[in-house]
Amino acid sequence: MPRLVAPGSVSVVERTLVIALPDADIAGRLPPPPHGVRFIVWDLGDPDPGVTIDLLVLRYMIPPAELRGLDAVTARVVQSQTLGFDGVREYLPSGMVYCNAVEVHEASTGELALALMLASQRGIGEAVAAQPRGEWAHAQHPGLAGKTVLLIGVGGVGREIEKRVAPFDARLVRIARSARTDGRGRVHGMDSLAALLPEADIVVLAVPLASDTRHLVDTEFLALLHPGALVVNVARGGVVDTAALVDWLAAGRGRAALDVTDPEPLPADHPLWTLPGAIITPHLGGHTDAMTGRVDRVVLEQVRRLRAGAPPLNAVFGVPFP
Amino acid sequence: MPRLVAPGSVSVVERTLVIALPDADIAGRLPPPPHGVRFIVWDLGDPDPGVTIDLLVLRYMIPPAELRGLDAVTARVVQSQTLGFDGVREYLPSGMVYCNAVEVHEASTGELALALMLASQRGIGEAVAAQPRGEWAHAQHPGLAGKTVLLIGVGGVGREIEKRVAPFDARLVRIARSARTDGRGRVHGMDSLAALLPEADIVVLAVPLASDTRHLVDTEFLALLHPGALVVNVARGGVVDTAALVDWLAAGRGRAALDVTDPEPLPADHPLWTLPGAIITPHLGGHTDAMTGRVDRVVLEQVRRLRAGAPPLNAVFGVPFP
Repeated sequence: MPRLVAPGSVSVVERTLVIALPDADIAGRLPPPPHGVRFIVWDLGDPDPGVTIDLLVLRYMIPPAELRGLDAVTARVVQSQTLGFDGVREYLPSGMVYCNAVEVHEASTGELALALMLASQRGIGEAVAAQPRGEWAHAQHPGLAGKTVLLIGVGGVGREIEKRVAPFDARLVRIARSARTDGRGRVHGMDSLAALLPEADIVVLAVPLASDTRHLVDTEFLALLHPGALVVNVARGGVVDTAALVDWLAAGRGRAALDVTDPEPLPADHPLWTLPGAIITPHLGGHTDAMTGRVDRVVLEQVRRLRAGAPPLNAVFGVPFP
Repeated sequence: MPRLVAPGSVSVVERTLVIALPDADIAGRLPPPPHGVRFIVWDLGDPDPGVTIDLLVLRYMIPPAELRGLDAVTARVVQSQTLGFDGVREYLPSGMVYCNAVEVHEASTGELALALMLASQRGIGEAVAAQPRGEWAHAQHPGLAGKTVLLIGVGGVGREIEKRVAPFDARLVRIARSARTDGRGRVHGMDSLAALLPEADIVVLAVPLASDTRHLVDTEFLALLHPGALVVNVARGGVVDTAALVDWLAAGRGRAALDVTDPEPLPADHPLWTLPGAIITPHLGGHTDAMTGRVDRVVLEQVRRLRAGAPPLNAVFGVPFP
């Protein structure tokens, strides 16, 4: 219940903050709620808990359409556990602020980008596929040293990729929406894409999915790559025109290492699964055991800010208060 | 034929240097021999070419017993294309100097160590194995960030691994034969091994195979690792007691990512191929397209030194002249 602080001190209205957590696991991991904060367990699909939720933490990796479940509750701030927010806007009830998970997945996704790049460049895919046959298939593979890596997207994930590519003696070329120079050198604008693609041995996609990045990798894009080039996607499946990629791979013109696909999950009978030169991981991006600690830090920081009357961090939709 | 320089100039006896190359490929790649240098193609198993060979370049990755072929020739310096030289001494004819290939494979082997580490930590092995079944098997994997990596061996390969692990936010602990401190901090001695193994999430082997490293990884070693730990071998197969590793993997106690095995090649019916948690690559270590340029540089440098009357680089057996 609201309580008025004694006259003479600064006048602050205190009320219990309600934090909805999607499962008992996360509730069990967090430290006990401080005075004036209450944790409840509520997940999309559950009925109205009958209280105003100050911070509603979503489950990890939910399809946007499930956000319809938010219509059942009164909530102020919705905290996602994912970084991307494509498709969220149309399902978010008006009046709710939606925050994405910043500094939760970038490092793990950057790590995975290197894992995919190295697995493909060093023949780990072929070796693992040959294991059940007991086949010792020694061959020369291209490696990463000396190669030109074209990184498309220099946001949080792009930065983590950049950092990890650095000691591998590759040549990193960066592209973002608009050209600029930062502390680490030149960033080319998207208008240079066609000129830069023929130089690339490896293209890494690290852009959000938006109207201007949907099907960025299409037939024309792939036609500009040299034979044997590698496309790595750790962004969103929709950044690639899957049909164009399938044709390109089927023709033996290049390789792909994809953590995200369109559609997703990839149906069992989809041709991508077995095309030569394709490595497919099931959207592992940020999902390592380092994730939970980082999610907990985000939740605790949002609670701290709500208690202090400060606007939540990383609001991407809705108007953060006060 | 020897030729005496005209009196008045510095007296130097010049004779044609004979450089034996193992195939026409390498001969074709090198620049034309300078004045006073002759290239011949000679490979182990070929008959005596009837000339004294000043520098004999071996084929890549030959079993030591093939070095018996050296008995057919008169040669001064034998240049290997590999870094390891286990088993060489017993077959090297007396009077020949044997040089290993330094700065040819270290970077590529370091790169592969990261490829194997990341593939195992991020579930690339499972994902690739599930591809033919069209199986989207999303799961959480451990990742590399926050993990303790115990690097055994801080020579050329160890240094390249160290450099590449640096941006992954792991904790690197280094062990070498004897304890010391270098510019990058502390190196533990082998006497600390038993104390350090229980802390390791990942053990990376980067030591030469020698009497004190043969079967370094044995039942006792493995018993000190915590459940689920990963053993990465990019050194030599004999550093691991294969039978002990098979038992450990079969019991589900940990994981392994091996580029080298004992025996090698691994026979098609060997249990290692299909044990859970094992990734096996066929001794890809240094074998990338960056290798040939590095081999060429070593050969050219040895030729330069022989012409200048300087001792060859990286002699590991025999007494380098003059």
